[in-house]
Amino acid sequence: MKNIHKIAVIPGDGIGPEVIREGVKVLQKIAEWDERLQFQFDFFPWGCEYYVRHGKMMADDGMEQLQSFDAIYLGAVGYPGVPDHVSLWDLLLKIRKRFDQYVNLRPIKLLQGAPCPLRDVRREDIDMLFIRENSEGEYAGAGDWLFKGKPEEVVLQTGVFSRKGTERIIRYAYETARKTGKTLTSVSKGNALNYSMVFWDQVFEEIGKEYPDVQTYSYLVDAASMYMINQPKRFQIVVTSNLFGDILTDLGAALAGGLGLAAGANINPERIYPSMFEPIHGSAPDIAGQGIANPLAAIWSASQMLEFLGYEEWAHVVLEATEQVLKEQKALTPDLGGTASTSEAGDEVVLKMTEII
Amino acid sequence: MKNIHKIAVIPGDGIGPEVIREGVKVLQKIAEWDERLQFQFDFFPWGCEYYVRHGKMMADDGMEQLQSFDAIYLGAVGYPGVPDHVSLWDLLLKIRKRFDQYVNLRPIKLLQGAPCPLRDVRREDIDMLFIRENSEGEYAGAGDWLFKGKPEEVVLQTGVFSRKGTERIIRYAYETARKTGKTLTSVSKGNALNYSMVFWDQVFEEIGKEYPDVQTYSYLVDAASMYMINQPKRFQIVVTSNLFGDILTDLGAALAGGLGLAAGANINPERIYPSMFEPIHGSAPDIAGQGIANPLAAIWSASQMLEFLGYEEWAHVVLEATEQVLKEQKALTPDLGGTASTSEAGDEVVLKMTEII
Ligand SMILES: CC(C)[C@H](C(=O)O)[C@@H](O)C(=O)O
Ligand SMILES: CC(C)[C@H](C(=O)O)[C@@H](O)C(=O)O
Repeated sequence: MKNIHKIAVIPGDGIGPEVIREGVKVLQKIAEWDERLQFQFDFFPWGCEYYVRHGKMMADDGMEQLQSFDAIYLGAVGYPGVPDHVSLWDLLLKIRKRFDQYVNLRPIKLLQGAPCPLRDVRREDIDMLFIRENSEGEYAGAGDWLFKGKPEEVVLQTGVFSRKGTERIIRYAYETARKTGKTLTSVSKGNALNYSMVFWDQVFEEIGKEYPDVQTYSYLVDAASMYMINQPKRFQIVVTSNLFGDILTDLGAALAGGLGLAAGANINPERIYPSMFEPIHGSAPDIAGQGIANPLAAIWSASQMLEFLGYEEWAHVVLEATEQVLKEQKALTPDLGGTASTSEAGDEVVLKMTEII
Repeated sequence: MKNIHKIAVIPGDGIGPEVIREGVKVLQKIAEWDERLQFQFDFFPWGCEYYVRHGKMMADDGMEQLQSFDAIYLGAVGYPGVPDHVSLWDLLLKIRKRFDQYVNLRPIKLLQGAPCPLRDVRREDIDMLFIRENSEGEYAGAGDWLFKGKPEEVVLQTGVFSRKGTERIIRYAYETARKTGKTLTSVSKGNALNYSMVFWDQVFEEIGKEYPDVQTYSYLVDAASMYMINQPKRFQIVVTSNLFGDILTDLGAALAGGLGLAAGANINPERIYPSMFEPIHGSAPDIAGQGIANPLAAIWSASQMLEFLGYEEWAHVVLEATEQVLKEQKALTPDLGGTASTSEAGDEVVLKMTEII
C-alpha cells in the first residue's frame, strides 16, 4: 500500500519556478525509489503575474483549494511593479496566518563546503534552529494612518501578542529543546518594547518552570545580533518573535552560506491546516529566467517537508546529498562561485542521493 | 577669552564610571593644551545604585538640572535586580526623548588595528554612519496589556511614526549625505509592517525629491542585516527607525571590532536641549569594578562631543589617536586580546594625542 501525499505547488514569481522545479525533481526521485510513498503535485499559477492579469494574487477560493493538501511547496513571491505589501499580504502572509502556521522553522546550519564570511569559526559552531513566531506579533497587520497629508499626520503600527499565540510558540520551542537535549535561547527586547516584550519575557519564564531540564538563555535582540556574529555557538534552539525572527534568520543565512542555502518551514503543528515549505530567499527578479538561481534552499525546504510528512530518513538523505554537492564544489551555482545551472545543481543532488542510499 | 563648556557627566552603572573617567581624562588634556577652551564637569550619581537607595533613577528635578548644560556625557545604565524597562525609561530613554535628541549618530567604521570577524573584507569597506531615529517609532512606549492573567490576555505595542518625527530624521540624513557627498540608504520593512514602514518609505521618497543630487537605496531590514555582513560597502549613510537602528548598529559594532569600540551621539540638532554622548555598550556587570573595561568607545563618543561643540580638529585628533592605539596593539584591553587596564588604555590615547598634535 502506498501513502499518497498531495502537495500543492505554488512556484510563484521570479526564480521561484526555477528552484521549485529542482525540489520537485528530488521529491519525485524519492517516490520512484521508495515504494511506500507517492506524491501528487498540483500546480497553482498564483503570484504577481497572476495578479497583473486577474487583479488578485490567488483565486477567490484559493484558500479552500489549498485546504485539502498535505503540504504546500512555495517558491517565492514578489515582482517589481506590484507593491510588496500587496503581493505578500494576499498570498504568502495570508497562507501563513489563515492556516495558522504559527511555527516558522529555520535551520541556520553551516554545511560542509558552504562558504562562511566569518574567520576563526568552526563549522560546528554555527548550528542553530530558529523557531520564529509566524502568526501574529509585529506582523498582525494592525495599525492606523491618521490625518493623512496634514502636519499632524501620524501612523501607528501595533504589534499584537496574545497569551495563546505567545504561549504556544514558546511551548513548542521548549518541547523541541527537551526532545533534542539542546539549549533554548529567547530573543526579545523588554528594555525598550515595554509592553509586548516584557510580556514575552514573562511567558518565557512562566513556561520554563514546566521544563526545568531545559537550559535557557534570554538575550536582547541587539545583543543577539552581535553574538550571532562573534559567538555563534551560544545559540542552539532559538525562539523569537515574528519580526526579530525575520531579521535574525536573514542575518544567520548570511553566516551560513547565503540565501541560496536558507530553508524554511511554516508549520501548523496540530495539522488542522496544511503546512508550507519555502526557501527564505525572495523572487530575485534580477537573475530570474537565466537558469542560474541556486536551488539548494528550495531542496533543503523539501527535506523539511519530508521530515514533516514522516520520512525522516529521506529528509536526512536529501540534506546529506546537498552537503555532499557543496563539499565537492563541482556543481555550484554562481552565487556560490560556481558555473552550474539551476538544473545541473539539482541533478547533482539527485546523483549524490543515489550514492548515499 | 575662553569658551567654557558645561558638561553634565552621568557615569551610571557597572563599567560606566570606569570608561567615562578615561573620556574625561582625554577632554581635560585637550583643555590643558588648547587655551581657547575649558570644560566644567558636573557629576551626577544617577543610575541603578541611586535607584536602590532613593527609589528613583534620577533626582526629581533631574531634567531641569541637566537643561543648563552644553552636553551630557553618559557611561552606561543597567544593573541586575533593577528591571531594564524601569532603569532605562527613567533615565536613558527619558533624556533622549524629553530633550528631543531625535538623531542618534552611530559611526560603524573599521579602524586600522581593530579586529574584524569577517574574512575577505577590506578595511575601507566598513565605513558607515548610521542615523537612527531616536525619539519615537517603536520606542514610543505606547501600548496596552489587556485581560491580564486570563486566557484572552493580549498585549499591544504600538509604534508611533509622526509626520514631523519621520520627516525630520530623514531630512537630517539627506542633508548629511549631501554635505558629505555619500550615498544614502534607508532601511525599513514595508512588506510586513504595513502602516508604519509604508509611511516611512513614502516620506523617504517624498523628501528625496528635494535632494536629486543624493544617490539613494532602500532595503528591507532583513536584507540589510545580510548585506551588512556580506556586502558592507553597500552602506555609507544609513537612515532607519529607532528599533532597526538599535539592532543594526549592534550588528555593525560586531563587524567593527565589538562593543568596546562602538560610539554614539544623541543629538538635538536645534540645540534647544543638550545633546548626549554615550558608548553603545551596556553596564557589563560581569566585568565591572575590575578596571578592564575598554574605554575606547567612550573616548570615541567624547570625540563626537568635541565635533558637536565645534572642535572638529580635536575630534579628529582623538579618533586618530584611538586608531593609533589599536594599530600598535600595545595598550589593548582584554576584550581586544590585550592585557591593559582601562586607565592604561586611556593613558595611551592621551600619549598618542601628544604625538599627533
Ligand atoms: C517576504 C516577507 C514578507 C517575509 C517576511 O518578512 O516574513 C520574508 O522576509 C521571510 O522572512 O519569509
Ligand atoms: C539600553 C537600550 C534601551 C538602548 C536602546 O535600545 O536604544 C541600547 O540598546 C542602545 O542601543 O542605546
